[in-house]
Formats: sequence, structure tokens, C-alpha cells
Amino acid sequence: MAGFHITVVGATGAVGRVFLSMLEERRFPINRLMVCASERSVGRELVVNGRDHRVELVSDDVLGASDFVFISATTEVSRDVGRRAMELGAVAIDDSSAFRMDTDVPLVVPEVNADDLDSHRGIVAIPNCSTTPLTMVLDALARLSRVERVVVDTYQSVSGTGSAAIRELLEQSKVVLDGGEAEPDVYPHQIAFNALPHIDDFGDDGYTKEERKMVDETRKILHRPDLPLSTTCVRVPVTVGHSEAVHVELANAVSPGDARAALEAYPGVRVVDDPVARRYPMPVDSEGEDDVLVGRIRADASHPRGLALWLASDNLRKGAALNAIQIAEEMIRRELVTPQG
Amino acid sequence: MAGFHITVVGATGAVGRVFLSMLEERRFPINRLMVCASERSVGRELVVNGRDHRVELVSDDVLGASDFVFISATTEVSRDVGRRAMELGAVAIDDSSAFRMDTDVPLVVPEVNADDLDSHRGIVAIPNCSTTPLTMVLDALARLSRVERVVVDTYQSVSGTGSAAIRELLEQSKVVLDGGEAEPDVYPHQIAFNALPHIDDFGDDGYTKEERKMVDETRKILHRPDLPLSTTCVRVPVTVGHSEAVHVELANAVSPGDARAALEAYPGVRVVDDPVARRYPMPVDSEGEDDVLVGRIRADASHPRGLALWLASDNLRKGAALNAIQIAEEMIRRELVTPQG
Repeated sequence: MAGFHITVVGATGAVGRVFLSMLEERRFPINRLMVCASERSVGRELVVNGRDHRVELVSDDVLGASDFVFISATTEVSRDVGRRAMELGAVAIDDSSAFRMDTDVPLVVPEVNADDLDSHRGIVAIPNCSTTPLTMVLDALARLSRVERVVVDTYQSVSGTGSAAIRELLEQSKVVLDGGEAEPDVYPHQIAFNALPHIDDFGDDGYTKEERKMVDETRKILHRPDLPLSTTCVRVPVTVGHSEAVHVELANAVSPGDARAALEAYPGVRVVDDPVARRYPMPVDSEGEDDVLVGRIRADASHPRGLALWLASDNLRKGAALNAIQIAEEMIRRELVTPQG
Repeated sequence: MAGFHITVVGATGAVGRVFLSMLEERRFPINRLMVCASERSVGRELVVNGRDHRVELVSDDVLGASDFVFISATTEVSRDVGRRAMELGAVAIDDSSAFRMDTDVPLVVPEVNADDLDSHRGIVAIPNCSTTPLTMVLDALARLSRVERVVVDTYQSVSGTGSAAIRELLEQSKVVLDGGEAEPDVYPHQIAFNALPHIDDFGDDGYTKEERKMVDETRKILHRPDLPLSTTCVRVPVTVGHSEAVHVELANAVSPGDARAALEAYPGVRVVDDPVARRYPMPVDSEGEDDVLVGRIRADASHPRGLALWLASDNLRKGAALNAIQIAEEMIRRELVTPQG
């Protein structure tokens, strides 16, 4: 196979770095790789597949010569670069919220709604890192019975915010351990040894954008525009790995055993559910794993047709970089993108 | 007022120390104070109200000379000491799960069900530290409309486990920050920079004892033996302060504004709910506070008669020591206990 011309925009960020290592891991068919980032990173060298790649500014020349442009940057950069890449004939796979809710942009988790890729027009969006694992669990359960309502509360790691947030958590933790005062910068309040019920901006209805994204994106991916879903998104002092406490109401009662079997059979999900042996999903165990870890699967004690469970997922991998690469792989498999001559 | 003969069992523990400082803060009417703990603490001196108090082993002499015996120890110690204190004519106020579900033992949050104290027979139990703030919020909302179902996920601090767990979190955090490997001891897994969906032992139905306690105790306190309630209890790397994401279904729709007003009017609750100004409850802000902090009050997007909110509460104070003292104060006010001659 000839291989593809790949451009990675935001290559030096938390997701970008994982993305480059995943290109290697998955032996993605690359003909030429370009790594782009903002001005202050230009000139740095990144090693991929044993070769140095010089960080450049993104340009029309770069985009026009690309089959795939992977973007993990600010929403503003995504909006500009994504649209320009499309105009120049590349397929943009974008990790921001810039295009996710556009009706002509597929929002895809390949295990759930790969068919939506067929209608792409040059931009494909990947969901928010807390949405992706949730949709996989809900899709698995929906094979047993229609999902009627979902309540989910999240325990999200700081790497979802980016590299600066990881530094802030680690440095602030040291300061607090030494008896000092935390000086918040990336977050509005101390994140070390604390929990912040605040991710992204607040809307008039009291929900954050992050919470709204989880609702809107889950509905779009599952093709369930009216699915009742409520969430509280919370940042916790964890480096990598988002966890979620999920409560699902189904049209018909489903036993925990049947739910467990459906989740075990679902691609990209690994059931870790032997609590008496102290085995259950944890963010530290999800780090570096491709699979979404699901456990604590049990009847929801508050509803006759309810299930409760707990998941943990590497927000940089399945929540971002892995999902993006899987989308490209699926588009190649479907011959929606073919290598340039 | 003459003052009471007080004995504190577990005086050197995380709750015990807070308890002693709260006796001072609240100018609890003390005639004589005895501080008891296990063998290895005997002989230590604790300063209360400017006076040294030598730690002793608990004994029949001590219990028999007490009006109130406050117990914050293991369930086994509580079972022995609580029953013996009662037999010897004292009132035991117990912080363990030993007596909470006994039908002849009132389980009390004074703001919610102080009247239950009238039927005491010498032992009063205080609820689990995650139950107490939840019952206050539910009782406030129940004044507007009957509560029909509750889903709550917790973010619990390590001080709920005790002093050794605080040390484990802090020391483990240092080790991990220095690039070392965590060596769990108090907890079954690393707690630093992690989240554990596991508090207390697991039952056959997949729920932990902690989760079962929250359900059973909430039902007993609210006199709602069949209230549908589901919870996932999670330990997070926070030192002090339990947080909870709460989703409530009511018999009639209640606006967030009305809910806010009802919560503001409720004793022991402080509404902290100006999210655009980045004001919401956080565990670090709850530490050292008597009030349960409640915010993020909003319509639950998944239910026409639902409300969602977020709370944070000092688990050592209202979750334990403060609630115990308030029970004693209420029993004095009701003349259920009078000072010895």
C-alpha cells in the first residue's frame, strides 16, 4: 500500500504527542508526515518512526499536499485549518468542538456509527473525550433494549485540558504538600487535592458547555436527538484517564449478567468487573490502554429497568488520538480516501 | 448551667480531634471531660479549653460517670462501648455503623429529624458522612414537593477513612511526584492521582456497604423506607471534604429558583451558586465549615420534574463531629439529658 500524506496540526500538544506515537504503534500507512504547531514550537524536531520531523507552521502548501489533516488545537485554529484543508482537497479529522454539531459534518466513534463517515464532505469531527466512552457503553446496551434515560457524573483528568494543566496539577500538588498556597492559573481554583464542578464555560441554564457537549454529541452519535441525558462534569486531581458513573434506564429490564456479556462482546470495551477481588476500572489503569474499561455493572437500585456502571478511559487515546486514527483507518477501508498519486 | 460529664472515645483519631476542637468552639457546657483512645495512645496529653487531658483507656468507671459518651472508633469498639455506656446510664452518641439501622436507635441529623431523639433508649447514631449532607438537601426539597427518586454519585475525601489514609494520600503523592511507585496500604490501590470506585466491602448485588449505607440511612432519616435511591461511591485524592453530584426527581416540577430559596432557608445549608463568577461548592472550601455548601442548582435536563445540584461538606464536621455535638445540644434542649448532680 502506497501510504498517505499526513499532516498533524497541534503536534506538540498533549493529544498531538500521543497521536504521533499511536501512528507508530498502529503502523499507519504513511507516505509523508508533516508536523505543525504554533509559532513558538516551530523548528523543534519530533522523532516519529525513527526519523526527525521539523515542526512547521501550517500553510496552504502543507494542507494542499495532504490526504489527512489531523487537528488537535484550539477551536479557533480548528475552524480555520479544518475548512481550509477541506477546500484544498484533504480530509480534516478534527478534535475540537468547532464542527461537531454541524449537520454536514459526521461526528464519529467508529465502533458506534462508522456508517456516518460515508456522507462526509471533507471534515470529520471526533467527540469530546468524555462523550466517546459513554456512547460505546450506551450502544452496547442499546443492542439489548432501547435506552430511555441516562444520568452520568464524570471524574475527568487534567490532561483533558492540555499539557499546561498537567504541569499545574503536578507543581501545585508539590506546593500544597510543602505547606504552601496554591496559585491557580490554568484552572480558576486550586485543582490539587480538590474537585471542580466546572469544565468549560457556564450557560444561562446552569449547565457548562462540557455538559452540553456530552448531551448534544451523544444524541448525534447515537442518532437519538431526543435522548434524555443529564450530567455533571467534574475535574478531579488525576493526570490521565476520565472516569464516569453511569446510570441507564432501559425500555425493558436487562440483567447485569446480560449487560456484562453485551459489553464484553463490544469492540473497544474491556470489562473489568470482579469487585470482590478488587478489580474495577480506575483512571491509572486506563492510562495507555486503547480499550474503555467498564465495571461495577449492577442493577440500578432506584429503577426497575435501570443499570448502573462505572467506566474509565484514556482521554488522550480513545478520547482523542486513537479515535481520530481509527476514523482515518475506517475511511481508508471504505475507500473514502485513497492515496495521492 | 452546671455542665455535663463528657467522655470522648477515639479522641486521638481524625474525627476525635475535630470533635474536641468543636467542643471548645461551641462552648459546650462541660463539667468534666474524659478523653479515651486505644492502648498505644494512653498517656498522651490533649489540650482542650486550655487544660491538659490525659488519654485513658475506656472503663466502666469512666462510662458510668458520664452523661454523654461520644464514640468515633471502629464498629467493634462502638458496639461494646455504646451498649455498655447505655447500661451504665449514659447516653452514647455513636459515629459508626454499629447501631444505625437498629429499630430502637434513633439515627439523627438534627435539622432533619430531631424529633426522633425523643424515643431514644440510651444510644443515638449519627449517619455516614456522605449520608448527612444528602438528607439535608433532600429534606429541604421535600418541603416543595415529594421526592420520588434520587441518583447520587460521590467524590469522597480520604479523611473519611481516617488519619492513616490522609498520611497515605500525602506520602504517596510525594512518591508519585518524584517518579516513584505507589505502595498502597490503607487502600487496595494507589489513591494519589487516581479515583477508586470502592468504599467499604462489596455485597453480592455489586453495591458496596458504603453505597448501601447511603440508601438505608437516607431512607430511615427521611422516614421514607421505600425511597428509590441509587449511588456510586467513589474515593478521590482529596484530603477533607466530601462532594456529591445529586439528581432528584420530584412529584411536581420545582424551578431552580424555588429550590435555591428552599435551600437558602434551610438551617445548616449555605447556597454557593454563582457559577458565572466561578462560585460553586468545592471540597477545599468546605473544609473547616459547619455548613453544607450547595450549588450548581439547575433543572435536570433528563427529567421533566428533575433537579440537579452539587454539594460539598466537611466530612469530619457536619459529616461526623458537628452532627454528634448538635445531637447532644438538641437532647439537652429537649431535657432528654440533664446534668448529673
